[in-house]
Amino acid sequence: MEEDILYHFNLGTKTHDLAQMFGDVKFVCVGGSPNRMRSFAQFIHEQLELPGNAADIRDICEGTDRYSMYKVGPVLSVSHGMGVPSISIMLHELIKLLYHARCRDVIIFRIGTSGGVGLPAGTVVITDKAVDSFFRPQFEQVVLGKVIIRSTELDEDVAQELLQYSSELPDIPSVIGNTMCTHDFYEGQGRLDGALCSFSTEEKLEYLRKASEAGVRNIEMESTVFAAMCRVCNLKAAVVCVTLLNRFEGDQISTPHNVLLEYQQRPQCLVAHFIKKHLGLIS
Amino acid sequence: MEEDILYHFNLGTKTHDLAQMFGDVKFVCVGGSPNRMRSFAQFIHEQLELPGNAADIRDICEGTDRYSMYKVGPVLSVSHGMGVPSISIMLHELIKLLYHARCRDVIIFRIGTSGGVGLPAGTVVITDKAVDSFFRPQFEQVVLGKVIIRSTELDEDVAQELLQYSSELPDIPSVIGNTMCTHDFYEGQGRLDGALCSFSTEEKLEYLRKASEAGVRNIEMESTVFAAMCRVCNLKAAVVCVTLLNRFEGDQISTPHNVLLEYQQRPQCLVAHFIKKHLGLIS
Repeated sequence: MEEDILYHFNLGTKTHDLAQMFGDVKFVCVGGSPNRMRSFAQFIHEQLELPGNAADIRDICEGTDRYSMYKVGPVLSVSHGMGVPSISIMLHELIKLLYHARCRDVIIFRIGTSGGVGLPAGTVVITDKAVDSFFRPQFEQVVLGKVIIRSTELDEDVAQELLQYSSELPDIPSVIGNTMCTHDFYEGQGRLDGALCSFSTEEKLEYLRKASEAGVRNIEMESTVFAAMCRVCNLKAAVVCVTLLNRFEGDQISTPHNVLLEYQQRPQCLVAHFIKKHLGLIS
Repeated sequence: MEEDILYHFNLGTKTHDLAQMFGDVKFVCVGGSPNRMRSFAQFIHEQLELPGNAADIRDICEGTDRYSMYKVGPVLSVSHGMGVPSISIMLHELIKLLYHARCRDVIIFRIGTSGGVGLPAGTVVITDKAVDSFFRPQFEQVVLGKVIIRSTELDEDVAQELLQYSSELPDIPSVIGNTMCTHDFYEGQGRLDGALCSFSTEEKLEYLRKASEAGVRNIEMESTVFAAMCRVCNLKAAVVCVTLLNRFEGDQISTPHNVLLEYQQRPQCLVAHFIKKHLGLIS
């Protein structure tokens, strides 16, 4: 192609010098909420003790409201919205961006929130395998009317390293386990409180028990396509999500706002610790 | 339930008087981009000649960045992000909101952008049937590990009315046709310019030809679940999307920004005209 327009980032190979802008990126952190990814960029700015004011960090995608993107030294922080289709658009354009910028040996993290399966709220789940609603470690993608199946294995070494670092930090209870990725937050995750619900509490609990037996420790909405696309494109990838509630105990997220905010910082702290270790800032 | 927390709207039945806030809503317009839905709210404010300054319209969901919501007289304007999972979360909470607010006879419109199938860029497609990647007028939802199939028929009268009104307005070339809803923007829509692509130009064109033969006039990423959920919940619904390009001619959206902006206003103008007719503001 003569020109590649990364439409949903409002960036392009003719309008932007992507190698100059992004060539030194070594870590990419993605998460659903634009505000959270801005906070994460500011947090990383402080953690890496970079010069300048963290509050001045500019949204590289400010020409569009589809995604937000912040660059802090070797770390890129990008929002992806909610659900597999939303993150898949972002990943296509991110992977093309890293290619155009000639980045090498990038590690990518999804830091997010999730519903816990048998874990107390506030637990950080480092994903072993991302599984679908049938507990299979695969992602189905329809291409030209045919179903293609891709593996959703993540990088084992990065996951183990994250688990080890979690024990070095205070107040980040962490486990490694499978993460179930659904395409709906209500019916699709067995919630009884959606606008539609066609099952009983007992049927819901039975499904959650089966998920638990299959090694599922949390439920979110992006991990399968994230794992599948990163794997096909040879990007080392990890999924680190905090649980906001224990789904065996309820469906509604009624935890106070300040407690939720503290929970959401846990994956950020863990991944920041990983990045500082890899940059040799801490031993 | 004693309390219903509409988590992704940052609203709840205990913290907000939903009947007082939303009881008079008669039209809901939803679209992907938060900025576009704010612009639409301001546009409707002018069109309905309401008192006050359109620039002062406040985001009702300002406590969260998951969705944006604006209320202008009897019109609610809500963003839904990109893809089926993202709009489905919003619809669950919107339908619960309308229920708690005791709204009656609401008509809901999705106004969006899309890729055209054999139509010149800038054409407005009013959806007859929303179809999946296999051209079937159905939406598959996984509930507790079982696949449930729902019909994606939309309101025929509303669609015909919209088509008629389009002929009364200048510069809104419109057709009624089927809309294909995919779960991916690149491979899923047969684009050759994604980070991954495993097919040839000829295979892509063959798929688009089959889609065209099945009555598909445009491709987007939300219509099937929108149609299915509105139908089950007895909401009259229509999908009105402008095409940004003709997919037989290319994949990249390289049209100048100002032309894209003008295209995006076409579904807004058409739906605003519909609302004004129904409110008796024009004959």
